[in-house]
Amino acid sequence: MNKQLEFAVLGGGSWATALVKILTENLRQVTWYMRNEDALNHIKIEKHNPNYLSSVEFSTDQLNLTSDINTAVKHADILIFAIPSAFLETELKKLSVSLKDKIIFSAIKGIVPETGLIVGEHFNEVYDIPFENIGVITGPCHAEEVALERLSYLTIACTDKTKAELVAKNLRGDYIKTKISDDIVGTEYAAMLKNIYAIAAGIAHGLGYGDNFQSVLMSNAIREMKRFIGRVHKMKRNINNSAYLGDLLVTGYSTFSRNRMFGNMIGKGYTVKSAMMEMSMVAEGYYATKSAHLLNQKHKKKSKTPIIDAVYKILYENKSPKKIFIQLTDQLN
Amino acid sequence: MNKQLEFAVLGGGSWATALVKILTENLRQVTWYMRNEDALNHIKIEKHNPNYLSSVEFSTDQLNLTSDINTAVKHADILIFAIPSAFLETELKKLSVSLKDKIIFSAIKGIVPETGLIVGEHFNEVYDIPFENIGVITGPCHAEEVALERLSYLTIACTDKTKAELVAKNLRGDYIKTKISDDIVGTEYAAMLKNIYAIAAGIAHGLGYGDNFQSVLMSNAIREMKRFIGRVHKMKRNINNSAYLGDLLVTGYSTFSRNRMFGNMIGKGYTVKSAMMEMSMVAEGYYATKSAHLLNQKHKKKSKTPIIDAVYKILYENKSPKKIFIQLTDQLN
Repeated sequence: MNKQLEFAVLGGGSWATALVKILTENLRQVTWYMRNEDALNHIKIEKHNPNYLSSVEFSTDQLNLTSDINTAVKHADILIFAIPSAFLETELKKLSVSLKDKIIFSAIKGIVPETGLIVGEHFNEVYDIPFENIGVITGPCHAEEVALERLSYLTIACTDKTKAELVAKNLRGDYIKTKISDDIVGTEYAAMLKNIYAIAAGIAHGLGYGDNFQSVLMSNAIREMKRFIGRVHKMKRNINNSAYLGDLLVTGYSTFSRNRMFGNMIGKGYTVKSAMMEMSMVAEGYYATKSAHLLNQKHKKKSKTPIIDAVYKILYENKSPKKIFIQLTDQLN
Repeated sequence: MNKQLEFAVLGGGSWATALVKILTENLRQVTWYMRNEDALNHIKIEKHNPNYLSSVEFSTDQLNLTSDINTAVKHADILIFAIPSAFLETELKKLSVSLKDKIIFSAIKGIVPETGLIVGEHFNEVYDIPFENIGVITGPCHAEEVALERLSYLTIACTDKTKAELVAKNLRGDYIKTKISDDIVGTEYAAMLKNIYAIAAGIAHGLGYGDNFQSVLMSNAIREMKRFIGRVHKMKRNINNSAYLGDLLVTGYSTFSRNRMFGNMIGKGYTVKSAMMEMSMVAEGYYATKSAHLLNQKHKKKSKTPIIDAVYKILYENKSPKKIFIQLTDQLN
């Protein structure tokens, strides 16, 4: 890997925008694909994304902007996907260019709804990408704080350490510190599960539970996450590392998290459908809850996951949040 | 222990007031000692503590109020101390009545400044109370949420399980769940250390670090706490239980925490002295920082505690918070 490898970021949202900002501070050129042509043209002329992190100004001569995913994939060696998981498969279906020999990093938090798989597994199973070419970029990181250049720590996970280090090297800088990990499955599941726990935190808040309960909920959530991930992929990991516990906390304590907001509405009495309509989008934790539930069912000896179970019953079985949470509080400690 | 044991709460602050409220919901009579006679007389007439949790109304016929600590100690079998650690020894010096055969529970978070010991150790070493008669009541629990009857979980620790259960039984109720533990040393140190981490969180906030960093700081803090407590008292404990991680989170994320507020002022440029004067009190984490530092020095093979070290340098060696935190950020991950 001596030649200068080309990076592409795929996605036009806030996390994609943040990643492009970070990469342009280290690389001469970054390819940036987004399907929204209006946004793309706006960036070309006004030098910022009109919809996300609009305070971030880009040197457009560093950007190779395209609204054609095939152009982006063809041009780049390392593809960083930052497309909401709900739209990933629609985007990938547009591909005529092969993904073979590409290094694929996922900056997506969630489950691909079509397959119920985490993104790494999806690329492996559906697109035949070997695991050593698949990586994960994970926080704890609100994109909005990247825009403000506030110190943030990213974990870059890949079973091939050289590739993890290669991506890490191009992400770290004055306000980004990086850590590499070989636990792609664990970091991806953590990133997915935390959204379920953020929904739970939101429901609790909506129901009137306070900060004392929130801390107990988070303390139980990290233990539940450890059990769940340990069942899916057993390996030595410290669940209190930033990529797991830190990521849970930054989301679970954020009042800006869409998942927490969605839960809050449910707790306050909105139906699932009306909460979704009100938010004009689907919180990723909604899909994650179903996937985690199904995955747990699949295992003969399923892990004890009272919080996931409670959120599932509320979101998918139309059970009363108030009653389910009263039951849940007895299972926590 | 078949006869009805008498409980006394010692202290007039918010946590003492909350504990009296909880106990009066389970017991016919509770002895309540506070040195402030004005507050005591106010409670007798107006049925609430004028200074703390004033919305909580007491049935005064359930209260055996006294401003004489000897009366309280003489009358009760189980003494729950909820006096700020900085004033504990001054209060104990007033005692002419023996503490022998009393069951002593500490609801104090911190270090006794005169001896640098946690409260349980202080009672054991200075007052010769055997460890099986010493217990700890710990959160995560903001007293203000007890006033609002918001669901809270308490951990009751004592090496004598029967005594832990006895106290737990008289604390649990509609909005209080209890858990017993045999780790009095670990829970006390956790309650003390969390105040140092709350100061660190405050300093970070004052310096302009954001939520991404806060989550990394907390994720590192719980790992540091595990190492520290493991060095002081090695036993099997799950550091992610509510008494450790939950207690860290409820304080570290609370904008009302005095320790966090104190740190915030330091981060914003106040000197330690002026921050203390401005707050007209000493944050408990201030003493805890020194004690933790000394304790760590005492061990030949000291545990790696970059956060405690950083707070110590800022509070006791007059080092620049900005510079120390830049160094600290390189030691976290």
